[in-house]
Amino acid sequence: MKIAFLGPEASFTQLATTQLFPTETKIPQVSILDCFRAVEDGIVDKAVVPLENSIEGTVSMTLDYLYKTPEIHIEAEAVMPIAHHLMIHKSQSNDADLEKIYSHPQALAQSFHYLDQHYKNIPKQDFSSTAAAAKHVSENPDRKLAAVANQFAAKLYDLEIIQRNIHDFEQNHTRFIIISKSKKSYDNSGLENIGRKSGLLVSLPEDHAGGLHQVLSVFAWRNMNLSKIESRTLKTGLGNYFFFLNIVGDWHPILHENALEELKALGTKVDFLGNYNEYLLES
Amino acid sequence: MKIAFLGPEASFTQLATTQLFPTETKIPQVSILDCFRAVEDGIVDKAVVPLENSIEGTVSMTLDYLYKTPEIHIEAEAVMPIAHHLMIHKSQSNDADLEKIYSHPQALAQSFHYLDQHYKNIPKQDFSSTAAAAKHVSENPDRKLAAVANQFAAKLYDLEIIQRNIHDFEQNHTRFIIISKSKKSYDNSGLENIGRKSGLLVSLPEDHAGGLHQVLSVFAWRNMNLSKIESRTLKTGLGNYFFFLNIVGDWHPILHENALEELKALGTKVDFLGNYNEYLLES
Repeated sequence: MKIAFLGPEASFTQLATTQLFPTETKIPQVSILDCFRAVEDGIVDKAVVPLENSIEGTVSMTLDYLYKTPEIHIEAEAVMPIAHHLMIHKSQSNDADLEKIYSHPQALAQSFHYLDQHYKNIPKQDFSSTAAAAKHVSENPDRKLAAVANQFAAKLYDLEIIQRNIHDFEQNHTRFIIISKSKKSYDNSGLENIGRKSGLLVSLPEDHAGGLHQVLSVFAWRNMNLSKIESRTLKTGLGNYFFFLNIVGDWHPILHENALEELKALGTKVDFLGNYNEYLLES
Repeated sequence: MKIAFLGPEASFTQLATTQLFPTETKIPQVSILDCFRAVEDGIVDKAVVPLENSIEGTVSMTLDYLYKTPEIHIEAEAVMPIAHHLMIHKSQSNDADLEKIYSHPQALAQSFHYLDQHYKNIPKQDFSSTAAAAKHVSENPDRKLAAVANQFAAKLYDLEIIQRNIHDFEQNHTRFIIISKSKKSYDNSGLENIGRKSGLLVSLPEDHAGGLHQVLSVFAWRNMNLSKIESRTLKTGLGNYFFFLNIVGDWHPILHENALEELKALGTKVDFLGNYNEYLLES
């Protein structure tokens, strides 16, 4: 089976993909759009893309492409705490006289307090990804360089982690989804399952006050709890929106089916993306 | 007056900031967090940060910091269509025998079709920002290099735009907000005003089915139309959320005030971010 993911090699998305699909063939893509295209065109079976809070992709793109390609479904969601580590080349014994620290600008920003406290006067330089920064350090064994990147990049480029978890906020995380044209749900008893949810895309027939309220009342009186709601502008003009919703729990063949039927009868466009597991990954 | 913005120099955020504050002192920051801190600590008067769809910052950070710093308000929102241009050094007369094309990975991805059609075999290289790519081209006048960047980068680094608007999708845009501790609204008759809205952060007393529905009913029967809704996880644990809402139109001293009063009486935490103008910027 072939799995596309948002690259480059050693990106956080690859770190997630490796845990979700340890033995499958994994093919990096340069953009979220390319991940969707690879699935749509049947070049791969599934793809892993960020859904929330990624430093590597504009995740609003993920919602837009889910809307634009109704044949693509969600098989699972995976949450990964964000962890940044400081790493050097193994031929360097320590961090004395460090010349430069490389990373993605957002990873440097997320590690600001640690770097400011311990390496205030060492120049920082932006790279296009944390993985590219790690690669650069690996290619310059004679220079006193360091990178801020994930543990997967340290392993791939054979770097030594000299300080783990240098990021500022404990509970930051990125959410990923597995997308495919199959309507099956991904199941993996080897990972920590932290819940079950449904994904829906809802677009209202017209932009009127209270339209979303009407949609939510269909769920509310059935005790269907929402864990995420996000509006996105349709590209057809100002004032037209669709909503991405997550409903907590298992799919109920009567309650959930009726809710969707009624929404459609009210003139609302509903794209059911799947009922699937949420897994907690290691960072 | 001093204005912080999410840098680097010649970023899309600077392009927005220059249009919003042509004559003020503008100070680049390395992260969205630093923009908020500069406002909070009184180092600057205002800051401009992305709210939606930026290739330069994880904009979910903007919502999180709005939540974490209740003394910070929104003075205005500004929408800028995303436009990527292909540019070369002025000492190069044309694009013959181009050696490499540089840009931010997402800008390369957003210009994929044009680049694939016209420069299929020219290597592309990732930079940490579109501006850094333009700067690199400007520093290498003797090499046949090109960058994909915005018009502001072309001007700042004195590059020649050889093809305008090479991005794939017409209606992509980035939204920015002006933040400050003042409760005044930003007003600029020199820009195109495309509407007025209010920003609210709402967090529910507990995670119960239909809680958001109850909040929205407060707005719905008063004909207060929502143009954006986005849920964000509170860092205190799984299953706790706050919502960012935009309500269309002017602030009504009776209807809007009562709605907020009732929400608070129901045990909902409401942070009113302001009632402000939305401007359309040039890209």
